[in-house]
Amino acid sequence: MVYITRKEHFSASHRLHNPNWSESKNTETFGKCNNLNGHGHNYEIEVTVAGDPPKESGMVMDLKKLSDLIDAEIIERVDHKHMNHDVDFLKGVIPTAENMAIAFWNILKPKIQHARLFSIKLYESPNNFVEYRGE
Amino acid sequence: MVYITRKEHFSASHRLHNPNWSESKNTETFGKCNNLNGHGHNYEIEVTVAGDPPKESGMVMDLKKLSDLIDAEIIERVDHKHMNHDVDFLKGVIPTAENMAIAFWNILKPKIQHARLFSIKLYESPNNFVEYRGE
Amino acid sequence: MVYITRKEHFSASHRLHNPNWSESKNTETFGKCNNLNGHGHNYEIEVTVAGDPPKESGMVMDLKKLSDLIDAEIIERVDHKHMNHDVDFLKGVIPTAENMAIAFWNILKPKIQHARLFSIKLYESPNNFVEYRGE
Amino acid sequence: MVYITRKEHFSASHRLHNPNWSESKNTETFGKCNNLNGHGHNYEIEVTVAGDPPKESGMVMDLKKLSDLIDAEIIERVDHKHMNHDVDFLKGVIPTAENMAIAFWNILKPKIQHARLFSIKLYESPNNFVEYRGE
Amino acid sequence: MVYITRKEHFSASHRLHNPNWSESKNTETFGKCNNLNGHGHNYEIEVTVAGDPPKESGMVMDLKKLSDLIDAEIIERVDHKHMNHDVDFLKGVIPTAENMAIAFWNILKPKIQHARLFSIKLYESPNNFVEYRGE
Amino acid sequence: MVYITRKEHFSASHRLHNPNWSESKNTETFGKCNNLNGHGHNYEIEVTVAGDPPKESGMVMDLKKLSDLIDAEIIERVDHKHMNHDVDFLKGVIPTAENMAIAFWNILKPKIQHARLFSIKLYESPNNFVEYRGE
Repeated sequence: MVYITRKEHFSASHRLHNPNWSESKNTETFGKCNNLNGHGHNYEIEVTVAGDPPKESGMVMDLKKLSDLIDAEIIERVDHKHMNHDVDFLKGVIPTAENMAIAFWNILKPKIQHARLFSIKLYESPNNFVEYRGE
Repeated sequence: MVYITRKEHFSASHRLHNPNWSESKNTETFGKCNNLNGHGHNYEIEVTVAGDPPKESGMVMDLKKLSDLIDAEIIERVDHKHMNHDVDFLKGVIPTAENMAIAFWNILKPKIQHARLFSIKLYESPNNFVEYRGE
Repeated sequence: MVYITRKEHFSASHRLHNPNWSESKNTETFGKCNNLNGHGHNYEIEVTVAGDPPKESGMVMDLKKLSDLIDAEIIERVDHKHMNHDVDFLKGVIPTAENMAIAFWNILKPKIQHARLFSIKLYESPNNFVEYRGE
Repeated sequence: MVYITRKEHFSASHRLHNPNWSESKNTETFGKCNNLNGHGHNYEIEVTVAGDPPKESGMVMDLKKLSDLIDAEIIERVDHKHMNHDVDFLKGVIPTAENMAIAFWNILKPKIQHARLFSIKLYESPNNFVEYRGE
Repeated sequence: MVYITRKEHFSASHRLHNPNWSESKNTETFGKCNNLNGHGHNYEIEVTVAGDPPKESGMVMDLKKLSDLIDAEIIERVDHKHMNHDVDFLKGVIPTAENMAIAFWNILKPKIQHARLFSIKLYESPNNFVEYRGE
Repeated sequence: MVYITRKEHFSASHRLHNPNWSESKNTETFGKCNNLNGHGHNYEIEVTVAGDPPKESGMVMDLKKLSDLIDAEIIERVDHKHMNHDVDFLKGVIPTAENMAIAFWNILKPKIQHARLFSIKLYESPNNFVEYRGE
């Protein structure tokens, strides 16, 4: 079994805010990330797929096709967007990196065939990142 | 003469929009960057100062002091902010990387003493960046 | 379960040397890293914590709080220090990257609550790094 | 147990092509990577070895020796080479990143003693990489 | 005046060889880069354009349009190609990084309007790069 | 004219200290960098040479020869060393990045023939770097 990974990029803004909480509870929990007008990141997403490379192609999956899939299903819907306002599949979800990674997993999982989605890694910045493996 | 550089980081959101233009003109000019709710970046700013290192310290300027200056004058005012709404010194300015670099130069120029501000380099992403040298 | 990671940096020096060994045995084992006056690195430490993000915050743990914890417990004690002489919790330990990662784990393990410390990754340089998972 | 990793680099060219397939099947499967005259990459290889660091050295394995081993067994045979024509151990194999990682594993596995080869990670570019763990 | 830069990527192979020279002279001059079957790189190209950002747009030039121009004029013609065999504008030229940067300059120079092409920077690898400014 | 650059790496330790100053003056000026036992960095050095690539080779200078020169003249003498104690050409000099860049320039300047040394850029860390151009 080999694990193959494709990395893609998008730029977006978000605000961490729980509408059921008081302002002070929001500030205490989310700090600067609670800023009313939001802030933003250059996100990096790494999608890892596991499988056996067939002898005749030597590829678990065509990385170009994986790239196209990530672009069509994810990047097109979040790039240059505000995650709290512009993204249908994040409606009602606090757009933390954790929740975004889980949402991306749920979108991609049924689209990967003949191989197995293994991990979604999402970088909010070079120093902050999360990984979800469907566990 | 030696050029010394300090790099700092901030995360912010912005929208490229000229209120004097029609929607179609804005879309044509700014593309996805005109998104109503904005989008965001992990910005990197490189501040370069030129000078002669005195023999007794061997430093053009203490990079820790330069870092503190950039933090106090720039980072504190833009980090985790929306550049169109939350930043006083960008009021009325379209927050392109070009205009932001010029604004940062104008703030830092009078604060650098005993050495000369040489360049402000601003990365919007690893693939898009601008430089302003006061020319 | 989601894995979240915070990366921090510090600059330090060290010398690999076993005082119970002869000079030739030390040189043979540690090579240039045995240099009497030491040498140094820009270390990068990645701390990964695993847990379930609660619905109301969407965060396994506040990455800002994780960053503050790493700073207070680790960075403050090793940054701009000589690991063989200046760091109490490394006394009597050969400061290889392996031993440093284990020492960092032992410090952080009891401090992470409501989530589980999963991994300490320590980069001595972009080409040399180690990972410890408490196994 | 600690996992230690050494990263090395090489530059090489390759062509993805199955001689048993028609031109159209090759183009459909490998796209631009099927270009007759080949194309190339700056590859990065990360070799991870797992083991217990003995108390007297504090090292799972000397990373300098691991580096020398990778250089002698891998880099010397693939650097500045065309993988389809110049590399004996890849004869008859389609040089995808997957197949290269498996070939590197098979070469290094019997050479790592007193510790266990855990993973071969091969970057074809910063956005495309594969990992093989002998599973 | 502001300098704006767009970075693009391509993967290609090349061979450094002067057909008017003996084999020994080629080997002595180009070393491993003279390998008969070529080798390859992930190239990075940085195109810098200088100009005054007009008040109404705040942009020296739309970086998206600059990106499209580089893609159409350069990347489409060199990506996943062998520079000695597949690229018309490099026919009869030894494809060193120096000569490639000059060729890219000559292609882009007349295409940049309302602003001035300032520099072409070409990375063969993170450790080897060249810059041409039309001087 | 083309500018070509070769990047090399070394790991070393240093202490910023002026023996003619009081402890308090040293602490005030150099802060944590004055730590008695020193600290260290993974330094990166970029050496830029300018020249006209001759038509028959297409190279300003063989980057392999430039790499060998930097290794022999600089890296061999500073790698895995303590700059205050182990490096003859830095005796009596406070090893700030500024002073190190100037010292490297003075060593390399007379060794570069048929082309012109243009710049020495020295990174102490990704966030702190200096450049010297012999001005």
